[in-house]
Amino acid sequence: MTDTPPFAQTPGPPYVAVIFTSVRTDGDNGYAAMAEAMDALARRQPGFLGVESARDALGITVSYWTDQDAARAWKKVAEHLVAQRRGREAWYRDYRVRVATVEREYGMGSSPLEGLR
Amino acid sequence: MTDTPPFAQTPGPPYVAVIFTSVRTDGDNGYAAMAEAMDALARRQPGFLGVESARDALGITVSYWTDQDAARAWKKVAEHLVAQRRGREAWYRDYRVRVATVEREYGMGSSPLEGLR
Repeated sequence: MTDTPPFAQTPGPPYVAVIFTSVRTDGDNGYAAMAEAMDALARRQPGFLGVESARDALGITVSYWTDQDAARAWKKVAEHLVAQRRGREAWYRDYRVRVATVEREYGMGSSPLEGLR
Repeated sequence: MTDTPPFAQTPGPPYVAVIFTSVRTDGDNGYAAMAEAMDALARRQPGFLGVESARDALGITVSYWTDQDAARAWKKVAEHLVAQRRGREAWYRDYRVRVATVEREYGMGSSPLEGLR
């Protein structure tokens, strides 16, 4: 453990953010093992920059990629892994995926607050 | 309470996502009241589309806006509200703000899994 906050260490924009928001089903159903495998797999993918994740009622995972091609390639790998396992219906009540190009970035030291909380 | 998952009801792309990731300080220090005020304020802003939020070790709030001008205008309002209160150093150990243009969007019913978890 280090004292470093768990922010993704992304380069200067532009790069690609995949915003994955989800509501889980009840029970684990193999989810924790799948999530761990998927995290390890993502980190080995070409073009992977980092990932940030939080969950309470809603889960939000933002993964960062060098470009759109890297994000698309990751999509295929992720689908394959899910297909090999129990399938998305076992784990998710619903989800949204948004693919976005990051154009500006600020940190606490460099500029004022822009988010909500 | 409804049974609807707490996803932001965004229109078809393109639109703007402001991804705010943060690590909190210890203690409330007026944070909960500030967050509630900021949420209410955001919802009244021109160009506001929705917001999704989750927190465990890391907090992630993604707010959605019609365009870059609406996102910039919100930044000024948010800064003003924070300046009126105790200030960001009381609430945050560190944060990142990323402003991105959403180009593609998928739901569970319409396409396969793309995110990490």
